[in-house]
Amino acid sequence: MNVILLSPDDLLANNRACIKNPRQLEHIKNVHGAVPGDQLKIGLINGNLGTGIITDLSDAAIYLEIDLQQSPPPALPLTLVLGLPRPKMMRRILQSIATLGVKELHLINSYRVEKSYWQTPFLETQAIHEQLILGLEQGCDTHLPHVHLHKRFKPFVEDELPAIIANTRALVAHPYTALACPSQIDYALSLAVGPEGGFITYEIDLLEKCGFEAVHLGERIMRVETAVPYLLGRLF
Amino acid sequence: MNVILLSPDDLLANNRACIKNPRQLEHIKNVHGAVPGDQLKIGLINGNLGTGIITDLSDAAIYLEIDLQQSPPPALPLTLVLGLPRPKMMRRILQSIATLGVKELHLINSYRVEKSYWQTPFLETQAIHEQLILGLEQGCDTHLPHVHLHKRFKPFVEDELPAIIANTRALVAHPYTALACPSQIDYALSLAVGPEGGFITYEIDLLEKCGFEAVHLGERIMRVETAVPYLLGRLF
Repeated sequence: MNVILLSPDDLLANNRACIKNPRQLEHIKNVHGAVPGDQLKIGLINGNLGTGIITDLSDAAIYLEIDLQQSPPPALPLTLVLGLPRPKMMRRILQSIATLGVKELHLINSYRVEKSYWQTPFLETQAIHEQLILGLEQGCDTHLPHVHLHKRFKPFVEDELPAIIANTRALVAHPYTALACPSQIDYALSLAVGPEGGFITYEIDLLEKCGFEAVHLGERIMRVETAVPYLLGRLF
Repeated sequence: MNVILLSPDDLLANNRACIKNPRQLEHIKNVHGAVPGDQLKIGLINGNLGTGIITDLSDAAIYLEIDLQQSPPPALPLTLVLGLPRPKMMRRILQSIATLGVKELHLINSYRVEKSYWQTPFLETQAIHEQLILGLEQGCDTHLPHVHLHKRFKPFVEDELPAIIANTRALVAHPYTALACPSQIDYALSLAVGPEGGFITYEIDLLEKCGFEAVHLGERIMRVETAVPYLLGRLF
């Protein structure tokens, strides 16, 4: 992790904090080899970044004097709509979107999403939260992405998506289309990426009716976990 | 897989081929549910893409009539120099660079590469080959990337790298620098990306002496497996 994220529960009075999360304690002790007096890069979840100086360190807790004055990096002006990835990839994708600055993620059903994927424990609120924190700690950001789950494709696209994409340009990545994905844009974007195997024609049609333009990424077909950073690098 | 890659050993006389690779057999039978008469998208390793029509299918082999007339997608005009990733990530990164069209990959030592990483069986020639094939089959490409291993940083950078990057612009991704990474370039590029934790200052200095320009990717620090597709999406 490149920053240690404190939760509001970690804060004490007088600009002090106490880290009790075992994962963070272990990292600070074993990777940083930290001792009292050391300075760590820290942030407050949904707050500022800054520094913490270790004042006391035990097996169960690390006490810090904190100074949080630096704004986190700006959010990407993006709403990402993703066909629910296979569970094996879920954690990696959640981490990676948090690292990259995505703040609105809609995970949706699609014809090629296996029904069993919706049963994975990785979709439980706490499990999602943990992966997002790991991604933010990697990317030196503090603002938690919002993750929304939509188990039915058609009602979501017809009834909810129009309001979600309002005032943005909406693109859907699709291999079989004439328009190339734009690059280095400076406007708010909604971006849909299908599951492994892509959206089916019916789904592309419905997304186009909703206002999406289909764009391709060249001749190469990428896995979702590759396509997402590739697209974000290209677009922003 | 989006294309099935044949090896020269699979070719028979009169535009016929016989697939015996168990992984490919299983995929064709179980994912495609293929029967005689079905048409598959196939390619020849380091050759053309095209189609194969199944003429015969048994537990041990699938016979095809093949027609290979389509060129694979163009290679990226890129030489990628990567700090050796941790073994857990090695397979994914090899797949992903093959999918993305990288044809020259140099895996190098660096201060923050753990020595034990060089011992992983994932670096054996056959293991690398298998991951590259998986990546090509995902990306619908046929040309195998060349993967070069360099276990010593300084001799590589001083004695070999100058010839490797000749006639290209050379960039090294580095968080602490003023110049932003360019985008949508149309010239040959050499790109160096450090290991987890980045190159150390001494290494950046040596790369700069060799002709590399340090460029940053914004405030966010990415994992290598995220940074590589992000950079390629941005650059090409």
